[in-house]
Amino acid sequence: MNMYDIIKRKRDGFELTAEEINYFVAHYVDGTIPDYQAAALAMAILFNGMTARETGWLTWEMAVSGDTVDLSSLQGIKVDKHSTGGVGDKTTIAVAPIVASLGVPVAKMSGRGLGHTGGTVDKLESIPGMTVRIERDKMMQIVREVGIALVGQTGNLVPADKKLYALRDVTATVDSIPLIASSVMSKKIAAGADRILLDVKCGSGAFMKSMDDAIALAKAMVDIGEEVGRTTVALVTNMDAPLGEAVGNSLEVMEAIDVLKGAAPADTTEVCLELAANMLLLAEKGTLDECRQLARQQVSNGQASEKLRQLIAAQGGDSRVIDDYGLFAQPAYSEEVLAPQSGWISSMQTELCGMASVELGAGRRVADDDIDPSAGIMLHKKTGQWVEESESLATLYASSPSLFFDARNTLLSAYEFANEPPHKTPHFLARVSAQGVERYL
Amino acid sequence: MNMYDIIKRKRDGFELTAEEINYFVAHYVDGTIPDYQAAALAMAILFNGMTARETGWLTWEMAVSGDTVDLSSLQGIKVDKHSTGGVGDKTTIAVAPIVASLGVPVAKMSGRGLGHTGGTVDKLESIPGMTVRIERDKMMQIVREVGIALVGQTGNLVPADKKLYALRDVTATVDSIPLIASSVMSKKIAAGADRILLDVKCGSGAFMKSMDDAIALAKAMVDIGEEVGRTTVALVTNMDAPLGEAVGNSLEVMEAIDVLKGAAPADTTEVCLELAANMLLLAEKGTLDECRQLARQQVSNGQASEKLRQLIAAQGGDSRVIDDYGLFAQPAYSEEVLAPQSGWISSMQTELCGMASVELGAGRRVADDDIDPSAGIMLHKKTGQWVEESESLATLYASSPSLFFDARNTLLSAYEFANEPPHKTPHFLARVSAQGVERYL
Repeated sequence: MNMYDIIKRKRDGFELTAEEINYFVAHYVDGTIPDYQAAALAMAILFNGMTARETGWLTWEMAVSGDTVDLSSLQGIKVDKHSTGGVGDKTTIAVAPIVASLGVPVAKMSGRGLGHTGGTVDKLESIPGMTVRIERDKMMQIVREVGIALVGQTGNLVPADKKLYALRDVTATVDSIPLIASSVMSKKIAAGADRILLDVKCGSGAFMKSMDDAIALAKAMVDIGEEVGRTTVALVTNMDAPLGEAVGNSLEVMEAIDVLKGAAPADTTEVCLELAANMLLLAEKGTLDECRQLARQQVSNGQASEKLRQLIAAQGGDSRVIDDYGLFAQPAYSEEVLAPQSGWISSMQTELCGMASVELGAGRRVADDDIDPSAGIMLHKKTGQWVEESESLATLYASSPSLFFDARNTLLSAYEFANEPPHKTPHFLARVSAQGVERYL
Repeated sequence: MNMYDIIKRKRDGFELTAEEINYFVAHYVDGTIPDYQAAALAMAILFNGMTARETGWLTWEMAVSGDTVDLSSLQGIKVDKHSTGGVGDKTTIAVAPIVASLGVPVAKMSGRGLGHTGGTVDKLESIPGMTVRIERDKMMQIVREVGIALVGQTGNLVPADKKLYALRDVTATVDSIPLIASSVMSKKIAAGADRILLDVKCGSGAFMKSMDDAIALAKAMVDIGEEVGRTTVALVTNMDAPLGEAVGNSLEVMEAIDVLKGAAPADTTEVCLELAANMLLLAEKGTLDECRQLARQQVSNGQASEKLRQLIAAQGGDSRVIDDYGLFAQPAYSEEVLAPQSGWISSMQTELCGMASVELGAGRRVADDDIDPSAGIMLHKKTGQWVEESESLATLYASSPSLFFDARNTLLSAYEFANEPPHKTPHFLARVSAQGVERYL
């Protein structure tokens, strides 16, 4: 077996064997297959795709290419959640405590933000004192004690995916659904949960701009779950506008806490409750309707916010932030962004909202940028609303007024106005499971 | 401008600009573009192709990426010839002297053999004393004195093509018609001739197995010639059987000399005379029919063989070989290959004939193998002939009898027998020029 023949077979449209994929992953990680051969293979995959079996094999080989997390000592069905990334997506911080408050153990590793999308780990770090740099044993101890831990990645997880993703990033081979799917799922599988809920964002603020692409990605990931024996369900959710009102780190944590207090914007609340219900369904806590009922109940009886309080305390954070948002670092400056005209907001280029937030200091352009936890945007008007000229569309927060000029221009360029209200689209666009695809649109 | 965007645009089916192609070639040669990005681009080109303009720009940038040969001090129209490689292709050694004997200057650089195809330079070196390692000034001096020089590549010619070809060779990106065409034509353009005759081999012994592929490659190369202002004509010739009877270095030189004595096999003679006529046409020595007449005349009046004599002497060789083949190094051993059955030879897997010759020591498996100038095969029976069981199909020549076993098996596996004679196919399958494609089949 040699890499040349593997590239040639994929180039010529053949299905690679499990042995060939094992050979590629093992020898790419150990450095005997050079980057230029891996790049040629990635481009051939981009053009010719991969079957469900190939994608499953690739995912599995990447998942076991380094350390894996063993959650088997935890009682019950462990359910992980992953979002493909959007703007204002603070759902994990609300959903995980809801689920954990019902006795479903959550030992979840999250990532940092890059580009227009934020990361859960950055958001959590905006809570004073809270750490996400927690070693494996300590994480397991916290889950045993309070039922939930939300941590950053530790150890040598999925080195094959790390190396291949870095290569794809500079060779224009990121945009391949089987490669995206295998990258996401390899991390989830290595992270050890029994079942996986995926939130596949779709729209102007997401990596997948169209329903068809989003469903194809969802299907590819669900298929991988089936191939490797980890039941996986994917919800395709609307990212044609930012989720909720808050974009930025501490701002989003506050909105997530608001979900647990029953005080969050309707879209954030709806998406968080439905994601929680689907995690509970995967944890076999009842039918989907029963799980929806359970999720609502844990918010109204205060047990979900109590679980968040325990989580923050267990990870060294000041849990009083739940009742007093004044304990978060406060932004030094704010500025209103005024509507340039009256009209219906017909659409938003949501990626630009994310970029405006990055310009304010809330995100990263490159991986080693510092971020400002207090910076960000509170959106007062979104798609589907009427606005009067000079009414405030949003409030910007930053550590320096010099940051407002670019961010305001970027944010304004995200808004489109019209004389008619746009058609309303639902927050949930589709549900994909081993049973098939249900489209809601 | 950056390489990522260039890869992405080609991946997405856009035509690259002249500036983008210049950027790629310049920075790939200077090492600032890494191999993995070039490999991704090559694979994207393999899938999406290149327009005639893109192929022309790539060819030109590669041609001028290193030294170029200036033939302008030579009087007259300089015509180069190139064959895409076959088995038993000794045409240059006969054609070039025919053309040169009519005052068309020939300053030609040739390559060495690799795999199942031989190389003109290796064949010439089988002439005792003859050298092809000749520097540029000396080559020009020989052409001025005797009108012809046949030499190996010197200097830093087409470094971009060398680097890119080596990369394509290990990333399964060789099989792209625009990339093959630009590689061939960049070398021809750097070599300085005004006009170019291409012999595109087609069939079981050629890189191009089908007429459509051979014509597409011919057309791509003719288009490049047009794009860069070097008139180019391509003849598509049959390589479904070895050309002539001799396969091997000194054996092929003898057959080429036989062409100039009017004593060669009919197919070799016909192909050589037609190639010579087309070179003379490009050199504006008359109409094609007049040029055919001229080529025949130079053979029958002995001037072509006299020109070969001068060439050999000018390059240090023993020109008495023309009259005495006993002066070539003689093979130590020979063995007959007997027909395993009676029947019509219906087809030959010509690549296997080339490989049998390599197994005898006449060619190279890898670039730094040594070759045995006296080794090779004399074919007594080819496609379309009737053979009796145990009649000799071919004679093998080698330096050791231990080499015969594998070579005989390989050669026998090349022959197919049938009860009916096969359809006869012509030696010339098509002619491609700026005026269009003429198919003869």
